[in-house]
Amino acid sequence: MVTIINQVNQTINQYIDGLLTTQPQLAKLGDWPIIYNRHQSKNHVPILSGGGAGHEPAHAGFVGDGMLSAAVYGDLFIPPKEDAILEAIRFLDHGLGVFVIIKNFDADIARFHRAIHQARQEGHRVKYIISHDDISVEPKANFQMRHRGLAGTILLHKILGAAAKDGLTLDQLESLAFELATEIATIGFATKPSQLPGEQEPLFQLATNHISFGIGIHGEEGYRVVEFQSSEQLAIEIMNKLHIKFHWQEGEHFILLVNNLGTATDLEQGIFLNDIRQLLELEGLHLPFIKNGKFMTSLNMGGISVTLCRMKSKQWLRYLQEDTNAFAW
Amino acid sequence: MVTIINQVNQTINQYIDGLLTTQPQLAKLGDWPIIYNRHQSKNHVPILSGGGAGHEPAHAGFVGDGMLSAAVYGDLFIPPKEDAILEAIRFLDHGLGVFVIIKNFDADIARFHRAIHQARQEGHRVKYIISHDDISVEPKANFQMRHRGLAGTILLHKILGAAAKDGLTLDQLESLAFELATEIATIGFATKPSQLPGEQEPLFQLATNHISFGIGIHGEEGYRVVEFQSSEQLAIEIMNKLHIKFHWQEGEHFILLVNNLGTATDLEQGIFLNDIRQLLELEGLHLPFIKNGKFMTSLNMGGISVTLCRMKSKQWLRYLQEDTNAFAW
Repeated sequence: MVTIINQVNQTINQYIDGLLTTQPQLAKLGDWPIIYNRHQSKNHVPILSGGGAGHEPAHAGFVGDGMLSAAVYGDLFIPPKEDAILEAIRFLDHGLGVFVIIKNFDADIARFHRAIHQARQEGHRVKYIISHDDISVEPKANFQMRHRGLAGTILLHKILGAAAKDGLTLDQLESLAFELATEIATIGFATKPSQLPGEQEPLFQLATNHISFGIGIHGEEGYRVVEFQSSEQLAIEIMNKLHIKFHWQEGEHFILLVNNLGTATDLEQGIFLNDIRQLLELEGLHLPFIKNGKFMTSLNMGGISVTLCRMKSKQWLRYLQEDTNAFAW
Repeated sequence: MVTIINQVNQTINQYIDGLLTTQPQLAKLGDWPIIYNRHQSKNHVPILSGGGAGHEPAHAGFVGDGMLSAAVYGDLFIPPKEDAILEAIRFLDHGLGVFVIIKNFDADIARFHRAIHQARQEGHRVKYIISHDDISVEPKANFQMRHRGLAGTILLHKILGAAAKDGLTLDQLESLAFELATEIATIGFATKPSQLPGEQEPLFQLATNHISFGIGIHGEEGYRVVEFQSSEQLAIEIMNKLHIKFHWQEGEHFILLVNNLGTATDLEQGIFLNDIRQLLELEGLHLPFIKNGKFMTSLNMGGISVTLCRMKSKQWLRYLQEDTNAFAW
């Protein structure tokens, strides 16, 4: 399998250089793997997120007015280094503190926690949310939910980013984040596993014409493998799992986000979107906000994930609808 | 290989249904495979394009204010039917005529020509341009240029669409189109051939870790296969072919469009963009407008194409920079 790169150790730097070519609103912080919004207002609480590379357009694609103030990168599927996270916090804090959005993976949490601890010792006020929207289950651990941070994290970026721009304080952002994070659920499927550059084998095995449900975004296998039947069958399985999480009633309002996990075609994603939307509407749900695109990928994995957010407040919808110049929203 | 669809014969309809879910500015014309801009002004010459499906986000992604007025679809890699093209012309014409952008493939030209002939007999004024930006060569025919219509067609959509909105007449649009079309050149490479849904084999064979240069967008093989070395090596080959076309001098201005042919990752495309941009700048070229994204795909093909347009007029740049709500620009 060809991956169009040069030296593996220059992958992230060269990607960022390419990115900055077409995104003049973004800048790189010195030699750090940190992308920030050049026009970030100092009158609002800044929002920081980040994680390993390999999830493009996340996270730089969500840096912009009314969304993230900066994103910090690690290597492919490796969380950012502590010193880079700390540097981003120092850079962003202009006296209002910094709010951080962390995806729920052990390695990410360990590094972000140490950086936040250090930043607090230096006098920075830092609050954070751990995004844990994954509702897929672990067959080897009594089918407990895995609760990893997946594409639902993007809804946190948008809603919290718009809320920060709206003037919410650090404490208010923390309250909103807690309320939001428990109402967001994501589950997806893979048609093809991802494969790291230079590796001979994909990160897991998947037989021809088979689907893995409940995959992660770092090459983690799903909870069940089935033969592919149709887009509609995939949508039924996904909807059933979302129903187990939400136990929705007819008439409830949900935000729907359909995410390309890497190499699904627009044709496939449009067809699947049509199927999942129809199924959710047949359940009597209202979908006042539908977002369809490529947000949080797992490198070259084939597949799609579905995120629902129960709309507990109309204000969430307004925050979603506000303009941003983040290029991947 | 899994393709996320339902019944093959419902693919285009279901894709369009999905699309309309998230693009309220677009509508479908009755039962026709025609997508149009709901808010199309009747005071400007309307612009029509289209072609087979399988090139998503083309062409519906370019329907919007200041770009295409409508797009007409055929089946996967099959041109639209004559009666659909004719219906689109009838629908769009409010007395100012209709300008049509056709990609240079024999089957497309035959159908569009018959529809335009019929429309003219009905009294519609129709002018057209045949987009022929491909500069790859045919080894079996003395290495003549193939001149197919590729991603450079998107620059015609944008510039002519903005010009029509600016008030150019049908005749003026035709002049502009002729001037533009000869200054646009595209060439690309594939890392993986495309494969149609339900087929066991891809549309051409490509050995592991190999690249095909100069591929088409309907599964046509390229002119040369080489082993993959690096993104930079690919960029050098592409730049050399573009130089043969343009014979540029230091200091000239070009528009650059880098296009995802289907399943390249954003990471790969950012790295390749960085390489091709650096090479072109080392040649002393000015690149006042760089566009990077997914515009004209060949279903699930892996690869990237590069389009250059020699900027003969500053007005072209202004037309490119004008806002549009076309979702894929």
